[in-house]
Amino acid sequence: MARISSPSSYDCWLGYKFIDNNELRKVYSERCSSMVVIGKTELNETARKELMHALTQMLGEPPQSEILVQGLGIVIGTFGSSKLFDWLTSIYDFDELGEEGYVIHTSDDGKIYLSAATDQGVLYATFHFIRLLQTGDCIKKLKIREIPDNSLRMIDHWDNMDGSIERGYAGNSIFFRDMQFTGELDRIRDYARLLASVAINAVAINNVNVHSHESKLITEQFLPEVAKVASVFRSYGIRLYLSINFASPMELGGLDTADPLMPEVSSWWNDATKDIYRYIPDFGGFLVKADSEFRPGPFTYGRTHADGANMLADALQPFGGEVIWRCFVYNCMQDWRDRTTDRARAAYDHFMPLDGTFRDNVLLQIKNGPMDFQVREPASPLFGGLKRTNQLLELQITQEYTGQQRHLCYLVPQWKQVLDFDTYAQGEGSTVSKAASGTLSGRKRGGLAAVANIGNDANWTGHVLAQANWYGYARLAWNSSLSSEQIAQEWIRMTFGSEDELERVILEILLSSYEIYEQYTSPLGVGWMVEPGHHYGPNIDGYEYSKWGTYHYADCNGIGVDRSMQSGTGYTGQYHSPVSQIFETTEHCPDELLLFFHHVPYTHMLKSGKTVIQHIYDSHFSGADRAANMIVLWDSIENKIDRDRYQQVRERLIHQAEHALEWRDIVNTYFNRKSGISDDYGRHIY
Amino acid sequence: MARISSPSSYDCWLGYKFIDNNELRKVYSERCSSMVVIGKTELNETARKELMHALTQMLGEPPQSEILVQGLGIVIGTFGSSKLFDWLTSIYDFDELGEEGYVIHTSDDGKIYLSAATDQGVLYATFHFIRLLQTGDCIKKLKIREIPDNSLRMIDHWDNMDGSIERGYAGNSIFFRDMQFTGELDRIRDYARLLASVAINAVAINNVNVHSHESKLITEQFLPEVAKVASVFRSYGIRLYLSINFASPMELGGLDTADPLMPEVSSWWNDATKDIYRYIPDFGGFLVKADSEFRPGPFTYGRTHADGANMLADALQPFGGEVIWRCFVYNCMQDWRDRTTDRARAAYDHFMPLDGTFRDNVLLQIKNGPMDFQVREPASPLFGGLKRTNQLLELQITQEYTGQQRHLCYLVPQWKQVLDFDTYAQGEGSTVSKAASGTLSGRKRGGLAAVANIGNDANWTGHVLAQANWYGYARLAWNSSLSSEQIAQEWIRMTFGSEDELERVILEILLSSYEIYEQYTSPLGVGWMVEPGHHYGPNIDGYEYSKWGTYHYADCNGIGVDRSMQSGTGYTGQYHSPVSQIFETTEHCPDELLLFFHHVPYTHMLKSGKTVIQHIYDSHFSGADRAANMIVLWDSIENKIDRDRYQQVRERLIHQAEHALEWRDIVNTYFNRKSGISDDYGRHIY
Repeated sequence: MARISSPSSYDCWLGYKFIDNNELRKVYSERCSSMVVIGKTELNETARKELMHALTQMLGEPPQSEILVQGLGIVIGTFGSSKLFDWLTSIYDFDELGEEGYVIHTSDDGKIYLSAATDQGVLYATFHFIRLLQTGDCIKKLKIREIPDNSLRMIDHWDNMDGSIERGYAGNSIFFRDMQFTGELDRIRDYARLLASVAINAVAINNVNVHSHESKLITEQFLPEVAKVASVFRSYGIRLYLSINFASPMELGGLDTADPLMPEVSSWWNDATKDIYRYIPDFGGFLVKADSEFRPGPFTYGRTHADGANMLADALQPFGGEVIWRCFVYNCMQDWRDRTTDRARAAYDHFMPLDGTFRDNVLLQIKNGPMDFQVREPASPLFGGLKRTNQLLELQITQEYTGQQRHLCYLVPQWKQVLDFDTYAQGEGSTVSKAASGTLSGRKRGGLAAVANIGNDANWTGHVLAQANWYGYARLAWNSSLSSEQIAQEWIRMTFGSEDELERVILEILLSSYEIYEQYTSPLGVGWMVEPGHHYGPNIDGYEYSKWGTYHYADCNGIGVDRSMQSGTGYTGQYHSPVSQIFETTEHCPDELLLFFHHVPYTHMLKSGKTVIQHIYDSHFSGADRAANMIVLWDSIENKIDRDRYQQVRERLIHQAEHALEWRDIVNTYFNRKSGISDDYGRHIY
Repeated sequence: MARISSPSSYDCWLGYKFIDNNELRKVYSERCSSMVVIGKTELNETARKELMHALTQMLGEPPQSEILVQGLGIVIGTFGSSKLFDWLTSIYDFDELGEEGYVIHTSDDGKIYLSAATDQGVLYATFHFIRLLQTGDCIKKLKIREIPDNSLRMIDHWDNMDGSIERGYAGNSIFFRDMQFTGELDRIRDYARLLASVAINAVAINNVNVHSHESKLITEQFLPEVAKVASVFRSYGIRLYLSINFASPMELGGLDTADPLMPEVSSWWNDATKDIYRYIPDFGGFLVKADSEFRPGPFTYGRTHADGANMLADALQPFGGEVIWRCFVYNCMQDWRDRTTDRARAAYDHFMPLDGTFRDNVLLQIKNGPMDFQVREPASPLFGGLKRTNQLLELQITQEYTGQQRHLCYLVPQWKQVLDFDTYAQGEGSTVSKAASGTLSGRKRGGLAAVANIGNDANWTGHVLAQANWYGYARLAWNSSLSSEQIAQEWIRMTFGSEDELERVILEILLSSYEIYEQYTSPLGVGWMVEPGHHYGPNIDGYEYSKWGTYHYADCNGIGVDRSMQSGTGYTGQYHSPVSQIFETTEHCPDELLLFFHHVPYTHMLKSGKTVIQHIYDSHFSGADRAANMIVLWDSIENKIDRDRYQQVRERLIHQAEHALEWRDIVNTYFNRKSGISDDYGRHIY
């Protein structure tokens, strides 16, 4: 029996731990004693290899047979590739499954069928089946039918060619180093495998801030290298996208304009696009940050975002490519003295007038909230606002504002809130999830994109437990109705194994971490209060007098931003009724977003029954205490975790607890000094 | 007649403008129709060339003769080098002049004698005489006798070998680039000439934070290059010093300790010192920042600063070198929550117990104030405190906290306040100036050191008018009793020429600039309130919750640091009576230092008759208005200044005025929000 070394943090959730439970392993070994993959395609081969590897690792030996046998075994292939799968049509509607859906079914005679319309679906089915074994599920009566909620499930890398990663907290890029490709395709393959295991189907490999060197990725200078990376991803069913520089016709082409309506400009892009497809026939398309934070764009020429996006879309259309156009557009040179401009309004104000004017192969990529990945924001009103435009919900897996992977912050609960947010665009139930996927307005294109949290650290994510965010994002992109708990449970079992106490403790740590992080950082939806630039650690006034449009307006009487229609910036008017009315008044606005929408006195009574100031004190004392307690919890399962991962996590939890004290004390001291109001419980505030 | 192109900003105060006033020029031409330098030494040759150049430029033609002639002319040389100077002994006591003093005397028959005990004095006399011509003085009856107040008049460069300058605002280093010496000795010669013209006699060329590469400056790898630079300085009477790394015996010598009491350590330093003197026979000595801001030092080994300094001093002593040991030692990892630790106390607490234990060739370099070059601080109590130790007053010409040469801030008035500060160490009149020079306690060594404000910018200092600080520092180091106005007048005439209106306007701008800068920045001696790290621009809470020990403790009721003996940190007790008592109470403490010494309510009434909060508002509105008015003043003399310098200054004044508004509004808004108290005059506060 071939025993294999225990999984390391590098393996993430695909460590395929040997199943210690003899009884369970015996059942699995019987049921999986043979496996056969019908049809030779690249993705089928990927599926075959993965299943073989997984079974060998988990069961201690490879399947006895890889040919079709009588009795128990696994049969894998696309529907139609063999009459073996025909009988499944009486149970499942294969048309409905689409290109990526799949079924996993145990026949009455005990055979397990993994099938789909395409080999991509087959690959997903295979990983799903492996997951069932990892999580110790019963496989005797499987009747699984999965269809993705979102057709596009994307990861965005903010990697620069010098190897740095903007907002990266887990080492350097796995793609680039010293202005070149790393050429380390094995690592990229390991990465693609992890992505495919959770059905990610698109990846943009370079930063949306495209500097002069990175602009050349779409030229002959780098396309051969880009194509190598695309090939690796292709073997896992993932299409590669590139972030582009809107000014490329000038910077690369020597034109004196990048005006999207000038024929020489579109002609330049047409040629550039053709070149790309010569190298990468399934190239996904362009990701574009234009007219934002000093990036060039159509505004320079008096053109609209639609003019810019459509010009690129027309170049890509013949090849099946698409344009992903970011809506993160606002005035980043705001005068802090100007109380009328509201950055929260910007994306809606810019893009709503353009609804319906974008080509069908354009998707607008919209950040979950109107500001920028704060620990708490309302959902962007563009969801539910836009009706005739493809949308893509942008999330941030990398923890820019949520502890930078030195703090634990399991973000799935935050993302669930966004996805489940009801926009009321078409009455009750018009969730952001439906808006993003396109189902709300009957559009085929749509989905989720998220900024990666991985780098070339040995454990990929710096903080081992931050792998759960990566995993969780992908699972939500596939199935937005999964709960935070379900996802965490899956991930824990796959990553650390199935042990009740271990699962209970890690689950508790993960599920409480977002609330804890919010407790000791900026309160009640007000956001920011971080060090400018790197965004790590508390600085209450850090952005208060800056040009970034991110203020809290705290004075000796109160705090918060009045975004009401009645007396404020009118931002609440960007939502549909009744959301608009709920946010409009302090009476109805939920506590957790109160300071996002309203400026209130410190003595304002929250729905929780506490004053704002007492809430600040209480939540910060509590958050810091609970952060410290996470170490205790973690230590309680020390003997159930390998030394390496135990220590890696512990070091970060210790730092987090210390840093939470700094947060607690600075926030509490700041507000105590500013308000002059004492803590009801007389706790020490410095 | 050889007319020369007009002076540029590169020339600084040695532009030697052609004298347009025909009458005056005629007198000068007659009086200077011949010049003769007695004795061939390197410095005499420097003096001869400089005078020849100056006369040629200013008078339009060289002197008619360089041999001794009958009639009018200039006779230059050391006393004793020729009997020509003997008759001067009946008028001047040459013993009293010492090594650097000099006389300038017009004999009854109209000859002008420049003489001194040494050729260094002769060089200074020559530059002095040139200055007389530049400023349009009458030279018919000169009777000048000058003796420097300070034996050491030093400039410290914080230059790194990568070419960067710590706290440099005028380009990169003129000494280093790309981890090497620039080799541009012409520029260094131009620099030495400017220094010698104002009698600077010492220069340290590398940053006191000595990184690993710079540590090697004292090794064979770099000593040949160091020696070349030292030669250039030598030809202008300037000795070269190096900042050293206290851990050199380990980092360079491979020892496992840098303990100053271990024989192998002192032996290593003895050898290293010998090597240096082989290359540079007049090497000045070592500048040391030890046990400060993460620099290594004797504390590591349980030794005192005296142990460390004396060990180095013993190595240097045989060669006539000295150790300059910085007193900038404090806890830079302070917990902001800790209200008992006071950074202001640190230097005194560290060094007073060591008074009298340092070798005679050690000087303690003490920053002017107890904190760090803020716009307003009290004088360091080490002056007047130390009685049996050589001292060196450290000033900062580079405008780290005073506008970084983008704002105009003529610092001579600030330095005058420090020099004139009466410590009462030996009764009234025990000024810092006397303490630093050594005269207060009868010590020969002493003087001033200052951090350079120059770089490789074409105009040396970034802001053309910042040249006045460089000039002014040197003039004060020579003669601390010169007034701010005298120095400014000299500098204006030498730099821009003698024109009444031009002089009046620039004088007004310069003399008001320190007050203006203070008005719109941090108030009443509280300091800081700048962006952390680079220290430019307002950030009221920027250092409030940091580890640097620099807090203002503003809350909704008041602001300031209680440093009294009665209720505070006891820092006031470090001063002699009656200074200690004056600072001790709000009743006697001068307004401008109130918040340095006391925490008071915003409603506290100042001696000025204003409340603290109203003072903050008034001074900030006034300061910003006056900053804007500097542009008007400057524009009024547009036609009296060359285009280039006019524009250079104007651009900076415009930036300053805009940035002053930012300061004004952020400070006022911060305190308005915090105090809730309105401006008496209802001016707009955001």
